[in-house]
Amino acid sequence: MDVIRNGWFSEIQEDLWPGQSFSLKVKKVVHEEKSKYQDIKILETETFGMCLVLDGIIQCTQRDEFSYQEMISFLPLCCHPNPRKVLIVGGGDGGVAREVVKHPLVEEVHQVEIDDRVVELSKKYLPSMACGFENKKVKLTIGDGFEYMKNHKNEFDVIITDSSDPVGPAVSLFQESYYELMKNALRPGGIVCSQGGTYWTDLEYIKKTLNGCKNHFAKSAFALTSVPSYPCGHIGFVIGSLDENANLKEPAIKFTTGEIDNLNLRYYSTDVHRGAFALPRYVEKFLYE
Amino acid sequence: MDVIRNGWFSEIQEDLWPGQSFSLKVKKVVHEEKSKYQDIKILETETFGMCLVLDGIIQCTQRDEFSYQEMISFLPLCCHPNPRKVLIVGGGDGGVAREVVKHPLVEEVHQVEIDDRVVELSKKYLPSMACGFENKKVKLTIGDGFEYMKNHKNEFDVIITDSSDPVGPAVSLFQESYYELMKNALRPGGIVCSQGGTYWTDLEYIKKTLNGCKNHFAKSAFALTSVPSYPCGHIGFVIGSLDENANLKEPAIKFTTGEIDNLNLRYYSTDVHRGAFALPRYVEKFLYE
Repeated sequence: MDVIRNGWFSEIQEDLWPGQSFSLKVKKVVHEEKSKYQDIKILETETFGMCLVLDGIIQCTQRDEFSYQEMISFLPLCCHPNPRKVLIVGGGDGGVAREVVKHPLVEEVHQVEIDDRVVELSKKYLPSMACGFENKKVKLTIGDGFEYMKNHKNEFDVIITDSSDPVGPAVSLFQESYYELMKNALRPGGIVCSQGGTYWTDLEYIKKTLNGCKNHFAKSAFALTSVPSYPCGHIGFVIGSLDENANLKEPAIKFTTGEIDNLNLRYYSTDVHRGAFALPRYVEKFLYE
Repeated sequence: MDVIRNGWFSEIQEDLWPGQSFSLKVKKVVHEEKSKYQDIKILETETFGMCLVLDGIIQCTQRDEFSYQEMISFLPLCCHPNPRKVLIVGGGDGGVAREVVKHPLVEEVHQVEIDDRVVELSKKYLPSMACGFENKKVKLTIGDGFEYMKNHKNEFDVIITDSSDPVGPAVSLFQESYYELMKNALRPGGIVCSQGGTYWTDLEYIKKTLNGCKNHFAKSAFALTSVPSYPCGHIGFVIGSLDENANLKEPAIKFTTGEIDNLNLRYYSTDVHRGAFALPRYVEKFLYE
């Protein structure tokens, strides 16, 4: 459920994060429709810029999206010594594609998004993200990520799953069978990174997803980034590597701060990479011990 | 301004964090009064336990306070090789005192809180925090931190300032003169740690506060912790050391995870300490370069 009342949009999800709600002051509801898959809203907010809302849940705002998009992209890319071919599942706003193409070793980016309306509306209303689709390295397919991967085995170095939360069209992307599918679509030494929720509300669910990853990948870990417009103000990532010698917490490729600035990264850095894996003691204990 | 409407408490501060608001579902307004210094509310929430609100701003909730209290205490305590005598300014709920006394080297904790009503109400309604006052190491003075420090020079190893935001009674605790005062109240090699806001909304203000610290302390840094019920879901700390050889990012005393668990720390660990100083690239650049 979501509510726009007295000029404020409130994100209320009693199943996912009961008893708490984040609200944004809205200048204008720019667009609203029900696509084949979900309810889509584009809001112009007072202080967070344009905002994409799917099924009542904030997906991204112009003000803080760079943190999410950079981290879901550069955490796995920098864990891989040679990430040439990348698959993005979801990510219909284009922000992940925008980040992935920045990596100097990336040659091809294939993206599968199920809902073409999210892509079209992002091109119209969120051009600072949708510009990702314009890069010539990017090939976008409208379709189902599951089906796509069944037909693309042993192809990718990195698979990034930029999904909505595990309700609605994204639910299958958190299941163990999805990790098996990704494993088969990867080349040897391949790496996956998926949106993984927040430990303040979903700790059991994170453990389940992480275990699904662990059962198919030699190394797995949970990392964090700060995103004020997400529930509890941050979001986690489940990362897995097929390389049994991988150390996910230490980037395989370490960009200097000069290189980081040249790549126009505002959040990610080698230090931020390392720090992202430092989990609160009770979370570390619950997930790993 | 704060609003309780349809059973939700909303924290709206158009001066401090315009256009955004965090809300908690409220079972019951347990207490409400205007003290000599501020408006005090105690709320019983649906999913965050008891919640203390001062002048419309959430100070702590039972569910997530441990992250803040542990970090504002153990970051500076673990930066000091021998923190025997500690001063807490503010912290009327007792949560910081509860954490500081856990440190095995701490012998004496002096605390100065300006508003006795916060202390009394915390004892009555927030006993899981106010238990800090019962420890025999703790000596509480009701009074002004500024005045207290003028009469206590060269006394403390660590000074922790657990204040509300820089509006109302706490405004002077963010000014450079406060850092000068703390410097004089410290023994050689002393360390300070203060609540420092969030970089998503207050970056200019953080820089100003950090510069105030830098002008009086040999080493200074900004660190972060996750607190869902605070604006943008986290809060920062400004930390300074008089020891020019100090490396704040690396604890002087490194507790093992076994020791961390025995101290009943749920958030802080040696890894979390290191990770807390990894700032987003744009923040690092703005504050340090």
